[in-house]
Amino acid sequence: MAGGMLSREPKVVTAGVALLADALTAQAVPVVPVDWRPPVEGTDDDLVTVLADPRRAEANRVAVERMLRSTAQLVDVRPAREALGLEPGAFLHAGPPIAWDRASGPLRGALIGAMLLEGLASSPDEAESRLAAGEGGTLDSCHHHGGVGPMAGVLSPSMWVFELADPADGRRSWCSLNEGLGAVLRYGANSPQVLDRLRWMGAVLGPLLQAAVRRRASRIDVTALVAQMLQMGDEGHNRNRAGTLMLLRDLAPELVGSEAPSGHIAAALRFIGGNDHFFLNLAMPACKLMADAGRDVPGSTVVVAMARNGTDFGIQVSGTGDRWFTGPAGVPDGLYLGSYGPDDANPDIGDSAITETAGIGGFAMATAPAIVRFVGGAVPEALAATERMYEITLAENPAWALPVLDFRGTPTGIDVTLVARTGILPQINTGIAGRVAGTGQVGAGLVTPPMEAFTAALKALAEATPPSPINPPRS
Amino acid sequence: MAGGMLSREPKVVTAGVALLADALTAQAVPVVPVDWRPPVEGTDDDLVTVLADPRRAEANRVAVERMLRSTAQLVDVRPAREALGLEPGAFLHAGPPIAWDRASGPLRGALIGAMLLEGLASSPDEAESRLAAGEGGTLDSCHHHGGVGPMAGVLSPSMWVFELADPADGRRSWCSLNEGLGAVLRYGANSPQVLDRLRWMGAVLGPLLQAAVRRRASRIDVTALVAQMLQMGDEGHNRNRAGTLMLLRDLAPELVGSEAPSGHIAAALRFIGGNDHFFLNLAMPACKLMADAGRDVPGSTVVVAMARNGTDFGIQVSGTGDRWFTGPAGVPDGLYLGSYGPDDANPDIGDSAITETAGIGGFAMATAPAIVRFVGGAVPEALAATERMYEITLAENPAWALPVLDFRGTPTGIDVTLVARTGILPQINTGIAGRVAGTGQVGAGLVTPPMEAFTAALKALAEATPPSPINPPRS
Repeated sequence: MAGGMLSREPKVVTAGVALLADALTAQAVPVVPVDWRPPVEGTDDDLVTVLADPRRAEANRVAVERMLRSTAQLVDVRPAREALGLEPGAFLHAGPPIAWDRASGPLRGALIGAMLLEGLASSPDEAESRLAAGEGGTLDSCHHHGGVGPMAGVLSPSMWVFELADPADGRRSWCSLNEGLGAVLRYGANSPQVLDRLRWMGAVLGPLLQAAVRRRASRIDVTALVAQMLQMGDEGHNRNRAGTLMLLRDLAPELVGSEAPSGHIAAALRFIGGNDHFFLNLAMPACKLMADAGRDVPGSTVVVAMARNGTDFGIQVSGTGDRWFTGPAGVPDGLYLGSYGPDDANPDIGDSAITETAGIGGFAMATAPAIVRFVGGAVPEALAATERMYEITLAENPAWALPVLDFRGTPTGIDVTLVARTGILPQINTGIAGRVAGTGQVGAGLVTPPMEAFTAALKALAEATPPSPINPPRS
Repeated sequence: MAGGMLSREPKVVTAGVALLADALTAQAVPVVPVDWRPPVEGTDDDLVTVLADPRRAEANRVAVERMLRSTAQLVDVRPAREALGLEPGAFLHAGPPIAWDRASGPLRGALIGAMLLEGLASSPDEAESRLAAGEGGTLDSCHHHGGVGPMAGVLSPSMWVFELADPADGRRSWCSLNEGLGAVLRYGANSPQVLDRLRWMGAVLGPLLQAAVRRRASRIDVTALVAQMLQMGDEGHNRNRAGTLMLLRDLAPELVGSEAPSGHIAAALRFIGGNDHFFLNLAMPACKLMADAGRDVPGSTVVVAMARNGTDFGIQVSGTGDRWFTGPAGVPDGLYLGSYGPDDANPDIGDSAITETAGIGGFAMATAPAIVRFVGGAVPEALAATERMYEITLAENPAWALPVLDFRGTPTGIDVTLVARTGILPQINTGIAGRVAGTGQVGAGLVTPPMEAFTAALKALAEATPPSPINPPRS
């Protein structure tokens, strides 16, 4: 492994005293500056227990190595009913599991839209009352079915998905097709225009993409496209312009080669080319495959999922299986569209924080200074955001290099103990949904998870630590 | 004008003493560090004369303002015989004018290929002897016909060109279509494969691009695409990946909408998408329009062309009309393909230094650290290259921002007097052609012009300075 975790080169780590760090930097000595601070309050006992777990170092090494080895290819495009075996009346959503009564506006709005799309209600009011009565269908988390959904992340059987696979072990993941910006289902909008677009995506775009993907002589290597987009100003979460353009380049000749009418092909090319976020829905399942590769290593403190349902922010950790550790989702600090403001914002929502879980998005902010500029920052803040993430991660991904940091790899493998020890929370870039059902997108910005998700995970890790001479049984 | 030339904000300019600069930077005070050094030897008298020219400040302000105001749209794609009225037997080439006897290997190789393509010779030997006897046709510089050609820059009547126009004043420029990398005519290769590709470009690609460009509802704004590529790791000379992808995005739907067979369209999409440099041939004529906008302002010391023919490196200056000031072209410091090395390299060749003349390419190196990495450098060297260019230019282009420099504009308007005063030469990124006719590309690297071109230009500017009370007539 070429990552930093196993590096044996001497490093100067400076704590607090900036003058020393500046002087060394001026002499071209690499410096790792660390903001020293006390551990998060109340975590001392759990930290002591988990840090003393003799399995931890090797477990984390295994988990992170598996993540770094994971790659993702686009293998098919299919309706969710085929790809996932999703039955009529089954709906998936982003984030940890949640029921209608606690669901936020954008999730409710998207579920209402999906009911209409699937023909399970004939009006928004009917859809809403059926859902509220528990007659609308079943709700489950995308993550529980090996996939991810941006924002509300609502998926119903007739929606089409990208299917990705890791060629080394055949593991699969999926994500919906991106609808574009503004009034779209994933932000909770459900107007006739939103539903018409989804119908066109199911009837025209999906089948065209399927034909193109199946015609290609070689599979599209999504991991390699992410590597290239990181060299082109995209961080793979709030900025996906280069990724979208490369996908278009790779699919366009195959779209032309399909038997479809040229008007449909031209419309598909315009739709993809006109939506800089189209690639997000490939970056996300690639990151899902990567994060999943690190799951279920006993004793590992590595975070393998971060996801929000608009009400709760939840994380999953390698050493604690499928258990979610949650806290209230925060409202992003961001830039608002038109006349919208913070009062219109729903709390943080979506599975797209899987990108940060895999080391891109906010973790790769250094490569996309245009994003911090949105919220009044600039290049130094972008560099600082990524530098901070190295303090809570275990490795650097040699496959995903950041040019502006002299091609240093993306910070990978969030360690719950490092979050608790430093108090530094993962940096997440995100879109902002309107809090009222049906509104759609109101902005984009930056957010961090609630610390309590990490302290709860730490406690569970401590409870799962086997007794040993240096870790006597807990009372 | 929003450029730095007219900025009235106080600035700290530090000369030499890095400790002061570092301390100020640490306190977030903007600092302009200047490497002070004595003027270039032998230029003192000319510098005194030109700097005392009362016309100079206003003339340079006008020249640079015109450059910054220039924009470029892609208006058509046509054969050179139509677009330029190029007659049979007329050949254009890169750089200042040159005849066969002094032409370097790659220029000779490209001319031989063009003779064969035009049916003016039936074998390379015949082409060569006719050219050597002066019977091959006429030779002239691309720049003399309002255009630019990469590397050898050879253009013959049947080759197709992009036509660009400045919408404000209708001025036009042109450039050939990019052939891809490796064995290609512009690097001096002329094998049957090279000629077949050119015939396909003339018979299929050119007409398809013409149909697509003419079908579009709006013209492609090349200046805006350059602005975006600078945010995506391209410097517009040695790296054009994002520019090429955006061009493909803008043309693909129109290609599909044309009446052409789908096999041809798919082949064109693959050809463009498989050649990361395709956009260079749009960036170059856009820069040509910009540089030409600054021409012919009496008293202006701004460089309006830098171009090489493989033997001579020439520059033109706003205040001295169409006169070329030349010196021997240097051999680039670069990375070589396969088993090639510096002994295989031809001296610097091509009109592509028009990109640096307009403030991108090597001048925008800060945005493309991958390029300096080729030659053993890294991010600090990339930043330093662009920072140095601010010392010899008069303005910052607000339309072309460099994210890593906190969105500072590209350094624009090379001033001959600043080059002479600082000894800093323009930084040029370039491809490297094999010196033997027919070889093709052997590498890519960095190069600077010969100082004597600038000192000769300075002397001519001094000679053209009208006598005045502070500038008595020269003896």
